[in-house]
Amino acid sequence: MRIGVIASVAHRSPPYNYGPWEQIASTLAEGFVARGHDVTLFATGDSETSAQLVAAVPSGYEETPGADAKVFEALHNSTAFAHASEFDVFSNHFDFMPLTYSRLVSTPVVTTVHGFSSPEIVPVYRQFGDIAHYIAISDADRHPDLRYADTIHHGIDVTRFTFRPEPGEYLLFLGRIHPDKGTHLAIEVARRAGLPLIIAGVIQDSEYFRTMVEPQTTGTDVDYVGAVDPAQRDILLGGARALLHLIGFAEPFGLSVIESMATGTPVIATPLGSMPEILRHGVTGYLVPDVEAAVEAVAKVGRLDRSACRADVDEHFTADRMTDAYLTVFERIANSQARSTGATTTAPQPRSIGSPGLFSHAGM
Amino acid sequence: MRIGVIASVAHRSPPYNYGPWEQIASTLAEGFVARGHDVTLFATGDSETSAQLVAAVPSGYEETPGADAKVFEALHNSTAFAHASEFDVFSNHFDFMPLTYSRLVSTPVVTTVHGFSSPEIVPVYRQFGDIAHYIAISDADRHPDLRYADTIHHGIDVTRFTFRPEPGEYLLFLGRIHPDKGTHLAIEVARRAGLPLIIAGVIQDSEYFRTMVEPQTTGTDVDYVGAVDPAQRDILLGGARALLHLIGFAEPFGLSVIESMATGTPVIATPLGSMPEILRHGVTGYLVPDVEAAVEAVAKVGRLDRSACRADVDEHFTADRMTDAYLTVFERIANSQARSTGATTTAPQPRSIGSPGLFSHAGM
Repeated sequence: MRIGVIASVAHRSPPYNYGPWEQIASTLAEGFVARGHDVTLFATGDSETSAQLVAAVPSGYEETPGADAKVFEALHNSTAFAHASEFDVFSNHFDFMPLTYSRLVSTPVVTTVHGFSSPEIVPVYRQFGDIAHYIAISDADRHPDLRYADTIHHGIDVTRFTFRPEPGEYLLFLGRIHPDKGTHLAIEVARRAGLPLIIAGVIQDSEYFRTMVEPQTTGTDVDYVGAVDPAQRDILLGGARALLHLIGFAEPFGLSVIESMATGTPVIATPLGSMPEILRHGVTGYLVPDVEAAVEAVAKVGRLDRSACRADVDEHFTADRMTDAYLTVFERIANSQARSTGATTTAPQPRSIGSPGLFSHAGM
Repeated sequence: MRIGVIASVAHRSPPYNYGPWEQIASTLAEGFVARGHDVTLFATGDSETSAQLVAAVPSGYEETPGADAKVFEALHNSTAFAHASEFDVFSNHFDFMPLTYSRLVSTPVVTTVHGFSSPEIVPVYRQFGDIAHYIAISDADRHPDLRYADTIHHGIDVTRFTFRPEPGEYLLFLGRIHPDKGTHLAIEVARRAGLPLIIAGVIQDSEYFRTMVEPQTTGTDVDYVGAVDPAQRDILLGGARALLHLIGFAEPFGLSVIESMATGTPVIATPLGSMPEILRHGVTGYLVPDVEAAVEAVAKVGRLDRSACRADVDEHFTADRMTDAYLTVFERIANSQARSTGATTTAPQPRSIGSPGLFSHAGM
């Protein structure tokens, strides 16, 4: 198939440090290329890919001083859609804006909903519900108003994560430093469990970091090591006793959770959002309702079989499994498109213009 | 012609108070309808128009608590472009985002550049330069990198402004309260000239208002009266000795300047941006380099012939003149489009997809 992958241009693909949307776009592009497809990755100019790279902006707007995010997004999306006729399918990983171009081209746009940044954006997904193909990244993240083509859990390139059979001597927090991610809860659990804590990740809420995290790192066994690249992540995750993932929100997916499991390190997590779909309580970690239960889980987590963690990733969360699941969806859509146009050609077809405005009326 | 007018959805059309983009979109829609064209106005649901109204959002995002501007813009623009095949031309008054859809439809998009909000947005205008039709609102606002279809000064419905032959006893500031607009300079000039000052307009920079404007209104002849609707504007403008328009930036156009002239009130302005194109020094007001010169101008402005101000508006700045100028551009573009497709039909034509990404290269 001829596949156009639309990455986010907040960061480069794959991300230097943080950037789960860009990571998944990149992983999928590599997977599609490896299976012999004709793949174009629309991403920042500093991206690295085995696909054909088309870049309308030099670098990520989060990584370019003075960049106007709206302008970067506009240049990027409109460039991708100018190439629409060259593809059998678009794989969209850049939120709702690409949808707004989708009615004007015949190429189906398969949009991976990487979570709803706010309830305010749901009306856009609804407006394009008649022609869109949505992929949820967990069943927990499915919105009741939307029809989905499939739920496909994220996958990782397991060759990049080293399995370590022995549990380590510290606990790990890995993720954005933000109240939602429970950095402060990880500190409390580590303190009460009497184990050192390493904190790694980009600071997303600097006030929270300054008041709730940084003061706890002075003269204690709590260390903040900053943002970490994939190689550092592998080392930090593999060396830990457990990953503390005490989120306070319904997280659509937890990429760091499956990365941790790939190194053999079990995860102690709040049972919110996608966590019950990813973790097996008592096997690959513990789902805990509060700090008290998390401290109890730390006491026994070292006795879990670390190979069971890796085995779950090998079975359910590989890039290969994710890639195949996406391709199955793409092929189903392409076939149904071909049937409905009575042709197997992929040339652009005029599309009917769909529903008018929501508040339409005539005259004054 | 079948004309789709794309208004801004920051405010309703026409605006309750502030909203020059919405005002011009509204004035043009009325003008096109009055000349017998088939006109659709894409605007907020609370808009009022003689055209067909299509609204994807209920009200302006600046006027709707909790509104997400990006979502409102996305719903609005994509709805307009879903209707593209119904129009011979789009008249775009909503900045650069509509451009990004323009390559995917055959309907020409005539974009009025209501000023460049930042140099960061110029790359988008450049990316669509090959197919876009830009209208500058003053020669001063033309960007050297862009090709324009025409410069068309704004026009107003002069029947809405009452000519007053006698000069009033106060000075007036009318516009956004923002350092760029020189509210603080107007206060200084009025104080030194010994005349009362009325300040009207939305507060755009509240810190500036709090520190530089509000303190000057206590126990002085300076009054801030808030945002004003069109009827109040007519009264305030007509009753003034002069409008003080001491801008500190190259303003693309000054709608309040021609509104003032329509009531007969001359304008004292900095000679920046479009001002020398709008004002005739010594006839309809004074172009002054600094506060000193502005104070001198106040002393003599009452002796100017107020009917000359109105006459300039009647000759150069009416809605009729603006409407006709836009229609001339639309007809030229429609004719050239018909010639280039060898047809007079306005049915959608496939459009070539244009230039690839700016930073395109292959492989890794």
